[in-house]
Amino acid sequence: MDYFFKPKSIAVVGATTNPFKGGNAILKNLITGYRGKIYPINPRYNEIEGLPCYPAVGAIPGPVELAIVFVPAHQVPDAVAQCAAKSIPGVIIESGGFAETGADGKSLQSSLTNLSKATGIRLWGPNCMGLVDVVNSHVFSFMDPRALQAGLTPGSVSLVVQSGMLSAGFLVDIMSHGIMGISKVCSVGNKIDVDECDLLPWLIADKDTAVVGLYLESLLNGRLFIDICRSSPKPIVVLKGGKSAKGAQAAMSHTASLAGNERIIQGAFAQAGVVEASDFKQMMDLCRTLSMVPPRKVHRPGRVAILTFSGGAGIVSADFLEAQGLEVADLSEETQASLGKLFPEWMPVSNPVDLWPAMERHATGNIDVMAQALTAVLADPQVDAVLLHAFVGNFRILFDIEDLAQQTNAAGKPAFIWLLGKREEAFRCYTAARDLGVPVFSEIGRAAECMAAVFKGRN
Amino acid sequence: MDYFFKPKSIAVVGATTNPFKGGNAILKNLITGYRGKIYPINPRYNEIEGLPCYPAVGAIPGPVELAIVFVPAHQVPDAVAQCAAKSIPGVIIESGGFAETGADGKSLQSSLTNLSKATGIRLWGPNCMGLVDVVNSHVFSFMDPRALQAGLTPGSVSLVVQSGMLSAGFLVDIMSHGIMGISKVCSVGNKIDVDECDLLPWLIADKDTAVVGLYLESLLNGRLFIDICRSSPKPIVVLKGGKSAKGAQAAMSHTASLAGNERIIQGAFAQAGVVEASDFKQMMDLCRTLSMVPPRKVHRPGRVAILTFSGGAGIVSADFLEAQGLEVADLSEETQASLGKLFPEWMPVSNPVDLWPAMERHATGNIDVMAQALTAVLADPQVDAVLLHAFVGNFRILFDIEDLAQQTNAAGKPAFIWLLGKREEAFRCYTAARDLGVPVFSEIGRAAECMAAVFKGRN
Repeated sequence: MDYFFKPKSIAVVGATTNPFKGGNAILKNLITGYRGKIYPINPRYNEIEGLPCYPAVGAIPGPVELAIVFVPAHQVPDAVAQCAAKSIPGVIIESGGFAETGADGKSLQSSLTNLSKATGIRLWGPNCMGLVDVVNSHVFSFMDPRALQAGLTPGSVSLVVQSGMLSAGFLVDIMSHGIMGISKVCSVGNKIDVDECDLLPWLIADKDTAVVGLYLESLLNGRLFIDICRSSPKPIVVLKGGKSAKGAQAAMSHTASLAGNERIIQGAFAQAGVVEASDFKQMMDLCRTLSMVPPRKVHRPGRVAILTFSGGAGIVSADFLEAQGLEVADLSEETQASLGKLFPEWMPVSNPVDLWPAMERHATGNIDVMAQALTAVLADPQVDAVLLHAFVGNFRILFDIEDLAQQTNAAGKPAFIWLLGKREEAFRCYTAARDLGVPVFSEIGRAAECMAAVFKGRN
Repeated sequence: MDYFFKPKSIAVVGATTNPFKGGNAILKNLITGYRGKIYPINPRYNEIEGLPCYPAVGAIPGPVELAIVFVPAHQVPDAVAQCAAKSIPGVIIESGGFAETGADGKSLQSSLTNLSKATGIRLWGPNCMGLVDVVNSHVFSFMDPRALQAGLTPGSVSLVVQSGMLSAGFLVDIMSHGIMGISKVCSVGNKIDVDECDLLPWLIADKDTAVVGLYLESLLNGRLFIDICRSSPKPIVVLKGGKSAKGAQAAMSHTASLAGNERIIQGAFAQAGVVEASDFKQMMDLCRTLSMVPPRKVHRPGRVAILTFSGGAGIVSADFLEAQGLEVADLSEETQASLGKLFPEWMPVSNPVDLWPAMERHATGNIDVMAQALTAVLADPQVDAVLLHAFVGNFRILFDIEDLAQQTNAAGKPAFIWLLGKREEAFRCYTAARDLGVPVFSEIGRAAECMAAVFKGRN
């Protein structure tokens, strides 16, 4: 599959000078970040975007490793046949208009399947947005070049998605909010040949990938997929679309997918150690968390110390942790003694640890109550992880995320942050946390859910 | 209870010149927004913040309607006795150090309860952050004045909370993110006298309140509370803390609350038409939604049209709607015909309505596909509400929230927005949506959950 991810040369079938067309966007995106040879293909032009244009792939002088095809559906089989004749090993077909559109499209799609079987050429798509490799600045996709102007943030989460949205609008949203970086996004569409069972092993072996998230509307080869997941040393997160009757029906018309029996799929996922997601951003939160905090197998529920500036938030956190199968840690006597030194005399030490009275007591002094409390609970052998509530903005709560990252790294125990605060300050904190590898959340429930995914470990 | 919400004069017992102390913050907050008479009380000063200071409430020349007390716990009973002697009808006690701190505090708290019973003086607190009335610019609280500098946004959601955090950090977070406005926040702490059963009827009758959200750690008079909720014409949303064993234990030390039997409470809530929340921001999302879209009783599941630019997001939306007991609407033939005119010929019309192919088709033209599709589905008698996926930023998806607000108002059917996009553009859209009364969400699951709360109606 290296020719899909690291091709030395790419032909763009359907390249055009019209800036409103995907065939122009593909070319612009390649010119921006891809360093190999680019061959625009279109019989109507001699040159597009400053590159010599060829009438057909057969006219390209040297070898070609990958073709990206974006022409009307009825022209695709011929384009693919020409690629096969030119011995191009892989083709990404981004055009729509195949099995998702009815009988004619189905027949076109069958002819592609037959071509692939007959010639051995590997076909990715159709009806997809192709590949984005943020780490290597490869955008093999018709997504709007303007959407990428702000730049993409490299990270270690790779995605396989049966939906264009995840590789365009969604990516822009995630990046601009400073939440996380991305390694690769593979948009696979109708999956007539290349599917999750091809891509997942490649991504599991990829040095730039720590976690793989998949949005799937069908599982064409469920047994193989489950086997790949079970033997993966890297965490796998799956969001399965089409769980409901109407959802399954929509999956049929979206990517011509048969959604399958949900209960059987869920059971198999759980057995294979797959983390199941239910929503898009939640899937990204799970992936982000597992890329920052590798799952750990503990032979009991994970024990969590809650550091809060709000008694109420501490209580709701305890409720969520227990609901997620985690434990609110019983703090050791040493820890209680350390925390007791920070607290006013009347205050008993318990977990959740409500730091507000200690903060009030030291408000005029210079003691960083949050940092000292963190040191105390991280040193406790009865604590596996910390859920810390932070506030950023002009308030009397001090929160130093760099100190937190240092302390948690040194202790080898993760801290999960529930963050409140002013919009700009919160944005800066999210961005800093992303770069430091600290998982931050805006909802307590989501923090607890992601924490549980870490402590469920891998089978 | 009017003397708590609309006092003509306020005494601040524990006023001080020290800017690090709550007694100074209370005074500053009053001076900023409150237009009645303010009497600082402290025997050590003649003047604080430019106001004449009195040695005791008894020395105040005129009548006083409300006292805010923020002195060390052991001085509180004497301060309250003096307020009773001065015939002040209501006292907000913001000091901590009572039943939540052990035996001595418990005994202090009992003496307050006895004082209230003996004199009829109404006591709010202790161990609370008091009252914030955004609509009337009343901040009867020691919350940091700097946190309020950016201003608070008035709205129609009122809160009763047993946690200071919700009236300080949380408020700042919600406001600065442009998500929603607030009417009143009542932080009630240990609830020795004034509790949710006093405040809820007042807020239900309040013309500035459309929805009441409550964060409670205990239900002292459950039967009465349920009766009030059942007969309320306004929606009530409750987040109950202390559902878990450790959470209930923490509730005991936070506000000395006995959390009660959760299953019985949940059943009673459901019967009384209370919307139950599980997390803080989710509670706010539910309140915000119900303040924008009043609940409607329909004698069948609400039928929803999904307008999307992503087949995958449409499928996941259908899954969430069905899981929430809503229906993905079967579109009428008229609607299918109207939508069909927007679509490419090969595209069958179904719900979820995937608008992307239509958008691609009209990309170079000037047709606002989203707005036209909205018109079509709103006109459909088989559609009760719309779930619309929007993207804001430099992309080819047009989204005009003012047109949407106009269309949905005219049709008398709500549209819920799932919003993706660049951070700044998304912020502007949230703010515009807040002012237009359009519920916008960043997660599909949350949008579906809030939609369900609207269609569950009131008992």
